[in-house]
Amino acid sequence: MIEDVVVERWDSGRPHEGKVFAAVFPHSDDFTFFAGGTLLKMIKEGYKGYFIRLTNDEKDSYDLSIGETIYRIEQETHQVANLFGIEKVYDFNYKNHYMDYTQLTEIRHRLMTLFRFLKVDTVISFDPWGHYEENPEHYLTGKAVEAACWMAGRQLDLPELKDMNIMPHFVTEKYYVARGPQLTNRIIDISSVLHMKRKAIALHATPIDSMWKIYLEKHPDGTGRFKSIEQFAETSFIREACEPYRGMQFYEKFHYIGPSEY
Amino acid sequence: MIEDVVVERWDSGRPHEGKVFAAVFPHSDDFTFFAGGTLLKMIKEGYKGYFIRLTNDEKDSYDLSIGETIYRIEQETHQVANLFGIEKVYDFNYKNHYMDYTQLTEIRHRLMTLFRFLKVDTVISFDPWGHYEENPEHYLTGKAVEAACWMAGRQLDLPELKDMNIMPHFVTEKYYVARGPQLTNRIIDISSVLHMKRKAIALHATPIDSMWKIYLEKHPDGTGRFKSIEQFAETSFIREACEPYRGMQFYEKFHYIGPSEY
Amino acid sequence: MIEDVVVERWDSGRPHEGKVFAAVFPHSDDFTFFAGGTLLKMIKEGYKGYFIRLTNDEKDSYDLSIGETIYRIEQETHQVANLFGIEKVYDFNYKNHYMDYTQLTEIRHRLMTLFRFLKVDTVISFDPWGHYEENPEHYLTGKAVEAACWMAGRQLDLPELKDMNIMPHFVTEKYYVARGPQLTNRIIDISSVLHMKRKAIALHATPIDSMWKIYLEKHPDGTGRFKSIEQFAETSFIREACEPYRGMQFYEKFHYIGPSEY
Amino acid sequence: MIEDVVVERWDSGRPHEGKVFAAVFPHSDDFTFFAGGTLLKMIKEGYKGYFIRLTNDEKDSYDLSIGETIYRIEQETHQVANLFGIEKVYDFNYKNHYMDYTQLTEIRHRLMTLFRFLKVDTVISFDPWGHYEENPEHYLTGKAVEAACWMAGRQLDLPELKDMNIMPHFVTEKYYVARGPQLTNRIIDISSVLHMKRKAIALHATPIDSMWKIYLEKHPDGTGRFKSIEQFAETSFIREACEPYRGMQFYEKFHYIGPSEY
Amino acid sequence: MIEDVVVERWDSGRPHEGKVFAAVFPHSDDFTFFAGGTLLKMIKEGYKGYFIRLTNDEKDSYDLSIGETIYRIEQETHQVANLFGIEKVYDFNYKNHYMDYTQLTEIRHRLMTLFRFLKVDTVISFDPWGHYEENPEHYLTGKAVEAACWMAGRQLDLPELKDMNIMPHFVTEKYYVARGPQLTNRIIDISSVLHMKRKAIALHATPIDSMWKIYLEKHPDGTGRFKSIEQFAETSFIREACEPYRGMQFYEKFHYIGPSEY
Amino acid sequence: MIEDVVVERWDSGRPHEGKVFAAVFPHSDDFTFFAGGTLLKMIKEGYKGYFIRLTNDEKDSYDLSIGETIYRIEQETHQVANLFGIEKVYDFNYKNHYMDYTQLTEIRHRLMTLFRFLKVDTVISFDPWGHYEENPEHYLTGKAVEAACWMAGRQLDLPELKDMNIMPHFVTEKYYVARGPQLTNRIIDISSVLHMKRKAIALHATPIDSMWKIYLEKHPDGTGRFKSIEQFAETSFIREACEPYRGMQFYEKFHYIGPSEY
Repeated sequence: MIEDVVVERWDSGRPHEGKVFAAVFPHSDDFTFFAGGTLLKMIKEGYKGYFIRLTNDEKDSYDLSIGETIYRIEQETHQVANLFGIEKVYDFNYKNHYMDYTQLTEIRHRLMTLFRFLKVDTVISFDPWGHYEENPEHYLTGKAVEAACWMAGRQLDLPELKDMNIMPHFVTEKYYVARGPQLTNRIIDISSVLHMKRKAIALHATPIDSMWKIYLEKHPDGTGRFKSIEQFAETSFIREACEPYRGMQFYEKFHYIGPSEY
Repeated sequence: MIEDVVVERWDSGRPHEGKVFAAVFPHSDDFTFFAGGTLLKMIKEGYKGYFIRLTNDEKDSYDLSIGETIYRIEQETHQVANLFGIEKVYDFNYKNHYMDYTQLTEIRHRLMTLFRFLKVDTVISFDPWGHYEENPEHYLTGKAVEAACWMAGRQLDLPELKDMNIMPHFVTEKYYVARGPQLTNRIIDISSVLHMKRKAIALHATPIDSMWKIYLEKHPDGTGRFKSIEQFAETSFIREACEPYRGMQFYEKFHYIGPSEY
Repeated sequence: MIEDVVVERWDSGRPHEGKVFAAVFPHSDDFTFFAGGTLLKMIKEGYKGYFIRLTNDEKDSYDLSIGETIYRIEQETHQVANLFGIEKVYDFNYKNHYMDYTQLTEIRHRLMTLFRFLKVDTVISFDPWGHYEENPEHYLTGKAVEAACWMAGRQLDLPELKDMNIMPHFVTEKYYVARGPQLTNRIIDISSVLHMKRKAIALHATPIDSMWKIYLEKHPDGTGRFKSIEQFAETSFIREACEPYRGMQFYEKFHYIGPSEY
Repeated sequence: MIEDVVVERWDSGRPHEGKVFAAVFPHSDDFTFFAGGTLLKMIKEGYKGYFIRLTNDEKDSYDLSIGETIYRIEQETHQVANLFGIEKVYDFNYKNHYMDYTQLTEIRHRLMTLFRFLKVDTVISFDPWGHYEENPEHYLTGKAVEAACWMAGRQLDLPELKDMNIMPHFVTEKYYVARGPQLTNRIIDISSVLHMKRKAIALHATPIDSMWKIYLEKHPDGTGRFKSIEQFAETSFIREACEPYRGMQFYEKFHYIGPSEY
Repeated sequence: MIEDVVVERWDSGRPHEGKVFAAVFPHSDDFTFFAGGTLLKMIKEGYKGYFIRLTNDEKDSYDLSIGETIYRIEQETHQVANLFGIEKVYDFNYKNHYMDYTQLTEIRHRLMTLFRFLKVDTVISFDPWGHYEENPEHYLTGKAVEAACWMAGRQLDLPELKDMNIMPHFVTEKYYVARGPQLTNRIIDISSVLHMKRKAIALHATPIDSMWKIYLEKHPDGTGRFKSIEQFAETSFIREACEPYRGMQFYEKFHYIGPSEY
Repeated sequence: MIEDVVVERWDSGRPHEGKVFAAVFPHSDDFTFFAGGTLLKMIKEGYKGYFIRLTNDEKDSYDLSIGETIYRIEQETHQVANLFGIEKVYDFNYKNHYMDYTQLTEIRHRLMTLFRFLKVDTVISFDPWGHYEENPEHYLTGKAVEAACWMAGRQLDLPELKDMNIMPHFVTEKYYVARGPQLTNRIIDISSVLHMKRKAIALHATPIDSMWKIYLEKHPDGTGRFKSIEQFAETSFIREACEPYRGMQFYEKFHYIGPSEY
C-alpha cells in the first residue's frame, strides 16, 4: 500500500514562515490522533495554524447527556488547540453522525470563505478517497475540503465575497490522512514531539473514556489485554498506531498533493 | 382570523386519566411560551405527558459558545419538564437553524416509533400551515408531526417494529399552535396556572437573556419601553401575549383537530 | 370556505370533443373518491382521459404483504380505469409514504413529458395549497402537477424532447381537489353518475378493506356506528362525503383554474 | 382578499436617508413587474437599493439558445438597475426552473452574508405564503429571504463572519408580493412613476418577446385581443395589472411586515 | 487483485452456535448469486440468519407489470429464504433503481434498529468500495450497512431505543461482495453446497427470465452461445461465476473485515 | 497504474459504420482535452457522434460576467463540435460547480432518454471511480452515465417512453477518462490527429484564457516557465499531457469496459 513514499524531513529553521494551514476534521480527536505530530512540526517550522471542526461530537461519550458531551468536547478541543499553539478554532458544529451528501455545497462554501479570509496555503484533512473507511464523516469532510481548495481560488465562485475584500485564494498543498487502504506517499517521523502528542491525547478525556468503556464492554471481566485506560490509550494511539516502516516506529502518514505545475 | 372558536373548559376531575400526550417542539422555550398553560391543564386532568425537543437550540444565546448554549438549554428544558410534571424529555438534538426538508422522513420515523411505544393519544405542536411563520423549524416540525400521527397507526409503515412489540397506534387529537395567521378554533384560558407559566418562563434563562440583549441592541441607551429583563419577559410572554378575546386576557390558542369519525 | 362558487352544468352534447385530460393522483382510490363523478362527466362530454398514478399504494392494505398489496391495487386501478373509459393508466409507482421534496423535479419532468406527448389540456389533481392535509403525498402531487402544467408549454424546458417530436404544450385548465380548507370555486353535481361511482368504489376492495379494519380497531366489539363494510363505504364516500350545498347532496368540489387571458 | 389595507403615502422629502433595501427576486422581470414603482419611490425617499437576482433566467426566451438567453437577460437586468438608480446587481445565477428545497440553506447563507455586509434594513421579495403560485421559484425565493432576514441578525449564525467584520444585522421590514391570493395589507400608488415603469418594462425585451410569442401561439392567426407586442405589454403589465381599488388604478400591492415591537 | 487471501475452512461442528448474521442486499437474487453458498455454510456452522432486502425489485422482469413483478419476486425471496433455513425476511421495499444518497440516514437507522433488536454479529452485504460497480444500489447498500454496523453499538445513536429495551449492539464481522475490482481477502469454497445454490437459483425465476430475454435480445436468432435458459443460468452463475483460484472452481469471494482489537 | 493495457489500433476502413457514440462531459473543454483525438478516430472509423454537455461552464472565465462566460463557452462548444464532425450538441446547462448528489436520478433519466432516442452504442465520459479527482462534476457525471448505460436498456425503467416510440436500448461500450489514479486498460495513439486537437484547443479560448491568467497569478512578474498562452497550452495539453508510454508520446488513455458476454 505504501509506495514511492517521501519521508518529510524536519527543518531546524522556519521554512514555512508566513504560511497558513487549516486542519479540517469532523471530530475533536481527529486533529490529535491523525495529525497531532505533523501539526506541531508545521507550527515549529513557521506555519500559522487553524482548526476547523465540522461536527459537534455529540455522540462521542459513553454515558453523558448529549448536551454535556458537546460542551465538554468543545472545551477539550480548545485546550488541545492551545497546547498545539493553534491561532483559533472554528467550530462548525454539524450534527455528529448526520453529516450527509446534501450538505456538501453549503459546507464547501463556508470552508471556501474561511480559506480565502485566512489565506490558507495548506490543508490537513481526511482522505476523500480512503477505502473501507466506515465513518462517512471522514470522507465527506475530505470531499468538501478537496473541492473547496481549488474553488476558493476561482474568480467566479461566490463572487460577492470580493466586495467584502475576501479575495480568491488557492489552497495548494494537501495532506490527507486515512485509517484504511490509501495511496500513502508521505510520512512524517513524530518521535521528537511524541510527548506533546501524549499530552494532547490525555486532553481528549471524553472520547477516550467512551472508547475505553466500549473496550470494557467488548472484553468484560478483565478479559481484555489492557488493564487501564492509560495503557489502552498509550498502546492504541502511540505504540501500535503504525506498523514500523523503514525503522521508524512513530510516524504519521499521508497522501500528499503538492502545488500543480500548470 | 378567529372563528368558530371553542373555549375548552377546565375539568375539576381526571377526565383524561390513562391518556398520553406528546408535546413536540423544535425549541426549548416553545413548550412553555406556546403551550405551557395547556400542558399543565392536561396533566392536571389526568394525562401523562412527554416532551420531544427536535433541535439542540444551539443558536439561542447571545454571547455563549455553542457548546455551552446547548448544554445550558438542555438542562433548562429538563428543569421546565420537571416543573410541569412531564414524564420524560426526548432530545432529538437536530442542528438548530438547519432542520430541512430532506430530513422529514427520517424525523417522522423517529416520531412514529416513539408515538407507538408511548401510545401517544394527543400531540401539541406547531401548526404545519401557520402562515408568515418566519422560522422554518416551526412548520417543518408541524409537518413531521402531522404525517407521523396517522402513519404511526398504519400496519405497513415500519412493519419491522411489530417484531419488537412496538405496535401500530394512531394519534387522534392534535393541538397546533402558530405565531401568525392561523385557523384558530380552540382557546384555553390559562389564568389559573399563570404563576406556573411565569416560573417556567424564568427557567428559560438562556433564550430570554438572548432576546433581552437583542432588544437592548435594537433600543440602545435606554430608549426602549422595557427597563428590565423581568419587565420584558412579563410583558411580552404574559401580559401582551394575546389580544383580549371575549373577556379573556390570558389564554393559549390552537387549531385543534379531533378524532375523525370514520 | 366556499365563495364565488360556479356550479358547472352538464352538457348533453360533446363540447370537449378533441380535448384530453390527465387525472394525476398519488393513490389508486383518489381517482374515484375525489373525482370519479367528474371524470365520468368529462368523458361523457367528449374528453379522452388518462390516469397517472404516482405511488405504488404499498401501505394501503391491513394484513397483506406489501408485494400482494401493490399487485392487487395495481389491478384494481386498471379495473376502475376500464369502468370509467380511461384510455390508459400510467403507474409511476413511487414508494408509498416516501414521496418527498427531493423528488419534485424528477417527477415533474416525467409529468411534463407525458403532458406533451398526450397533449393534455386539463388536469385533475390534488390542490397544492389545501391546508391541514395530513398526507404529504397529496400536496406534493399537487405541487409537481402545478409546475409541470406551464413548464410543459415552454420552449426551453427539456428542449431535447423536441428532437423526439414531443413538442411544447401548455396544460390550461386545472381542477384541484382537497380534503380540508380550500378556496373552493367550482362544484359538479354527480347525482346522475352516482351508480357508477358506487361501482368504482366497490372495485377499490383493498384500500376499503383496510379502512374498514381500521374502523373496527377504533370501534371494537360492535361499538361503531357502521355494522358492515358496505354501510361504511356508502356512508363515508357517498352519503356524507359532502355537506349539502344549495340543495345539492352529491357533488365533487374543486379549486378550478382556467386558461389565463394573457 | 384585501383587508385592513394601508395606502402608503409618498413623502416629498428623504425620510429613508441612510436606509438600505434589497430587492430579492428569482427573475429579471420580477423586479419591474411586481415592484418597479415601489423601488422608485424608495430610492426617491432616500433608500440605497440593491438587486439580488437568484436565477439565471435561462428558460425565458422563445427561440434563443440558452446561452444567449442568459447573456441577454443579464444585460437587461443591469440596464433596468441603472434606470432605477440601483447601486449594484448581485446575480446568483441558480439554474432557472431548478431551484429546489435542498438548496434553501445554502441560498439563505449567501443572502445572510449580503444582508449583513450591505446592512440591509428592508427587503422586497415574493410572498413565501402566496397561494396558487404556480412557479416554485417565487415561493422558494420568499422562504429563503424570510428566514435570512432574522437569522442575519443573530450572533451564532455563521459566526465566523464576525472575524471578517461582517457583523450580525437584522432586516426589519419586508414587502412581499404575490400573483395569487395573499393577505394584502399595503398598497402603493405608482401613477407618478408610471412612465419610468414603462421604460423599465421595455428594457425587458427578451422575456416580453417570449410572452408575446406564447400569446400568439395560443391565439393564432390574429385571433387574439392584442395586435402588437406594445399593446400586449401596456395592457397586461400596466393597464390591467390590478383591479381598481379605492379609486386607484395603478398601484403595487404587498403583504407588509414591519419591525416587531419586542 | 486477489492478495493475502484466506481460504475459510469448513468446520464440521457448530462453531458459530449462538451467533446471528444478517444478509443485507438490495435485490432478491443478490442473496443467492453472491453469497448463497456462504450463507449455507454459516447456518450449517450454527449461525441464525436473517435476510434484509432493501428494494422491491420492481424493475427485474422483462414483460410483467411492475405490480406483478414485485409480488412474484417477493414470493421467490421467501422461498429462497426457506430453502436456506433463514429465520425471517425483512423486506424494506425501497423503489428499485431509485435508492439514492438522500436516503442513507433513514435506511441506516432502520438497519441499526434491526441490528440491535436481532443482536446481529455478522453482516454479508455489498462492498461499499467495490469499483466499476454500475448499479448504485449495490454500493449504496454497502454504505448504509457499513455505517450502521458500528453506530448500532454506540450509546448515543437513536438513544430513545434503549427505553424500548433495544440496546446498543456492535456488528463486528463483515463479508463484503463485489462484482468488479475489490480488495478480496477471503474465499469460501462452495462446492459442497453447489446443489443447494442451484436449487436457489432456479427459484429466482423472474429475474433469470429477464436476464435470459435480454440475452436473446442481444443475440437474436440463435446467434448466442447459450441455447436454453438452464444452460445460461448454469454457466453464468455456477460454471463461470469465478476464475479458477488455487485449484478451486466454485467459490464465493469477499473483502472480509473482522472485529477490531481495540 | 497502467497494467494490461490494450493499445487500440487505427483502422483504415469504416468498422464502426452504423454505430453511435455519445461523449458526455460536464465542461466544454473536457471533450477536447481528454478525448478529442479519440473522438476524431471514432468518427473517421464510421461512428456518428453526439456531445452531451452537462454544465453551463459559468465559472470558467477569469474576468467576464457569468452571462457572457456562459454564452461564449456555449458558442465555442458548438464550434469544436463542428470541427470534429459531431452531429449535434445537447447542452444540459446544469449550474457549474453546483452539480450534486441529489440530481443524479433526474440527470440519469435525461441521459437514458437521449441514449434510447439516439440509439447510443458507446459512451466516452469521466471515470466514475477515478481517485483524487478534485472536481466533483467529473465523477458525478461518470456516475450518472454509468447507471444510465444499462438502465437505458431495461424494459421497466421509464416505461412510458415506449408509448413515444423511444425504446429500451443498451449502451454496451464505455471509455472512461480520469485525471488521477485509475485502472487504465486502453490507450489510443492520437499523433495522426494532433493537428486537429490543436485546432480544437485553440477554439476553447475562454477556459484557456482563464487558466493562463491563473497561471500568471501564481507566477507573477514573468517568473513562470511559460512566456505565452500558446506555449502554455501547447505544453500542458499536448506535449506534457501524458508520460511517454511504450514509445508513444501523444495518446489518450481510458478505463475501457466492453460488452458483457452474458
